[in-house]
Amino acid sequence: MKTKYILDEADMPTRWYNIIPDLPAPPPPPLHPGTGQPVGPDDLAPLFPQALIAQEVSGERYIDIPEEVLDVYRLWRPSPLYRAHRLEKALGTPARIYYKYEGVSPVGSHKPNTAVPQAFYNAAEGVQRLTTETGAGQWGSALAFACATFGLECEVWQVRASYDQKPYRKIMMETFGATVHPSPSEETESGRKILAADPGSTGSLGIAISEAVEKAAGDPEARYALGSVLNHVLMHQTIIGEEALKQFELAGDTPDVLVGCTGGGSNFGGLAFPFLREKLAGRMSPEIRAVEPAACPSLTRGRYAYDFGDTAGLTPLLKMHTLGHDFIPDPIHAGGLRYHGMAPLLSHIYELGLIDALAIGQQECFAAGIQFARTEGIIPAPEPTHALAACVREALRCKETGEEKAILTALCGHAHLDLPAYAAYLAGQMTDNELAEETLAEALATVPQTG
Amino acid sequence: MKTKYILDEADMPTRWYNIIPDLPAPPPPPLHPGTGQPVGPDDLAPLFPQALIAQEVSGERYIDIPEEVLDVYRLWRPSPLYRAHRLEKALGTPARIYYKYEGVSPVGSHKPNTAVPQAFYNAAEGVQRLTTETGAGQWGSALAFACATFGLECEVWQVRASYDQKPYRKIMMETFGATVHPSPSEETESGRKILAADPGSTGSLGIAISEAVEKAAGDPEARYALGSVLNHVLMHQTIIGEEALKQFELAGDTPDVLVGCTGGGSNFGGLAFPFLREKLAGRMSPEIRAVEPAACPSLTRGRYAYDFGDTAGLTPLLKMHTLGHDFIPDPIHAGGLRYHGMAPLLSHIYELGLIDALAIGQQECFAAGIQFARTEGIIPAPEPTHALAACVREALRCKETGEEKAILTALCGHAHLDLPAYAAYLAGQMTDNELAEETLAEALATVPQTG
Repeated sequence: MKTKYILDEADMPTRWYNIIPDLPAPPPPPLHPGTGQPVGPDDLAPLFPQALIAQEVSGERYIDIPEEVLDVYRLWRPSPLYRAHRLEKALGTPARIYYKYEGVSPVGSHKPNTAVPQAFYNAAEGVQRLTTETGAGQWGSALAFACATFGLECEVWQVRASYDQKPYRKIMMETFGATVHPSPSEETESGRKILAADPGSTGSLGIAISEAVEKAAGDPEARYALGSVLNHVLMHQTIIGEEALKQFELAGDTPDVLVGCTGGGSNFGGLAFPFLREKLAGRMSPEIRAVEPAACPSLTRGRYAYDFGDTAGLTPLLKMHTLGHDFIPDPIHAGGLRYHGMAPLLSHIYELGLIDALAIGQQECFAAGIQFARTEGIIPAPEPTHALAACVREALRCKETGEEKAILTALCGHAHLDLPAYAAYLAGQMTDNELAEETLAEALATVPQTG
Repeated sequence: MKTKYILDEADMPTRWYNIIPDLPAPPPPPLHPGTGQPVGPDDLAPLFPQALIAQEVSGERYIDIPEEVLDVYRLWRPSPLYRAHRLEKALGTPARIYYKYEGVSPVGSHKPNTAVPQAFYNAAEGVQRLTTETGAGQWGSALAFACATFGLECEVWQVRASYDQKPYRKIMMETFGATVHPSPSEETESGRKILAADPGSTGSLGIAISEAVEKAAGDPEARYALGSVLNHVLMHQTIIGEEALKQFELAGDTPDVLVGCTGGGSNFGGLAFPFLREKLAGRMSPEIRAVEPAACPSLTRGRYAYDFGDTAGLTPLLKMHTLGHDFIPDPIHAGGLRYHGMAPLLSHIYELGLIDALAIGQQECFAAGIQFARTEGIIPAPEPTHALAACVREALRCKETGEEKAILTALCGHAHLDLPAYAAYLAGQMTDNELAEETLAEALATVPQTG
């Protein structure tokens, strides 16, 4: 029984896929918070290199991956597509379960797929250093690795709660040569303001973004890098789905259901968009399902409105599903899913009715994670346990109905640096932190009355 | 430029290689400490299942890998062989550097290659539970994973120093369903004896082995599993070298130098023995080089003599290079290399002059590890940084002489669960702990006057 579908380096995709020209309507543009007008390339130039700004607004269906980026991708790509024979057997399901595994990357997640091209384009335009934020640390370590590869300096603001509780990620970033600050920090105006109001603040992604953006905007040799949310980031991740399509051909199968977790949306979009292209073209018809944590349910319970991407209001206004830019989610273990908004492109696609979404509490997710570890050997990161929980639900439905569906799951990383989350689950110390109605109402009140 | 040489599952070796029949002389047998006579199968039956005892003394050149074991191997095998283009460029060497990477396994090291068959053969003979020891935790987590796979209980004694300092490994073992005790423990006579003499004992591999052996010997439903040292363990690891031989064929190359780190010897033997077979048959002529830490240099500075495998003297006497079974190495970060002895089979091969050995201090090793991480992306476990340091030395020699050698390095695992070691190095808090002459003399005085 074939377990892994492996592509040779020679079969690695050489283009990223931009879904925008294939959509029935274009996504609403980002707006300048002062003028209320769409932002132009000049507005973004202090933060991003020209090549990435061009990709952000591109109408081209495919963009060639530079040879220098392919060279680095080859350190771990193509990533394997697995058939989960052992999990299927444990569940007693007639479903065929597949998972696309991104944990083979240097930092153990899908994040280097965009960190590497972002570092490359910045280096190519003479940028000296990149600033960024990180929550659990997956994005920060990916950018630290990518910067080491192209000789850039890297400065990371890590959410204070993670900085203190997950020291391994910080060491990984420093091993790759990066400088790491806890956020909020005294290094920026945004950080000092937060600390003045709340000296014990444990931070949030929104605050850390403010700090990194502020630092980059004030240093002409620096630019800023974002690990999710933006169009170009989601596009870089489509190499995942393009590979998976080729691997399903090898397997002689087609997915009936595709599930992925959503934080900012890049892991989900990366796997789903190439399959959505095939669906829109009538070549296959998978149900496509986004899974978010009950503690931070932006797609299923947020408002679709223009809001800031960060807490201090330094970014353009983005039309997205948002819980309010001031919202600080409860400290669940899936740090990568704790963001108040959702990628505008993914929000738009959800509004178009092209994908479904559901929210799941973390206890069910970790139960699925443990079952997966004991059958398939890989201990999944807290984020993709959400996709696994939805996958298990679907497989058990198939068991009831007898349907032999093919389910494809995005396994975007392993848990080696998140093991304390499993310790908490095994010790019975985990709660779901489902977002209360009242808290949601308060948070939504901070959404600006624009657009 | 090709980066990875990947084998399809269909090309995975289906036999382990037993080097013993190909050696010019057989290795000296283990002796019963009471009688001084070679131990027989009956002596080993309380500790090991019949199938593994048969493998331990087998004269067959090849042993078929059971289909059930191949099924589990396919979760991560065949493992990749990499060409280190980026490291070569950073070193400016004309050498071609290759590394065989075992960090793709569920627990991030080569250990599951033997944990899986050991669990399988025990389960097949009706054993209910396995006991074992672990130092840094790599072996314990591999056996925990393997036991989960075949429905066995797993009880692990982890050296107290690691248990306290490296909690992530313990969580990994528990996630796979194992029970973990710090060693020395109150669970065994051996442990209680050590604690009575030294209540603050931080333990050693030798002590942990005593505890696990004692527990298995006293429970008819339990057996014991060892992660290195024994013939059958080294044999299970030869799948590494067999794959690498096929991958070098794909690369159209032949190694001139092969370097691996040695603790108990299984990682080194696993890669080296198939190449040594080719060398003994005159089909290639690589130099084969074992690298050990300066703090625990059993091959280069130990005595070749019969000694116990554990501290309490519960094991048979093994003819090996030993620093004395009472020796407790300084707490260097490469926990997997802190064993007082060396595999008898590898010791014998060293005495026959078929391999070289050298010892390196850990600071040079971590410098090589950092350089490797920043070029190749993988942060190597502390153990294989020793092989990398020797590889860098060889590559720099080639730079001086202009020789275009092909160097093959055993990269037996990643450092995700050992990152504090890198933090210590980056903070300048690392010393080499080279073994002092006086300490060595004291330690060797504990070697029994047998044989």
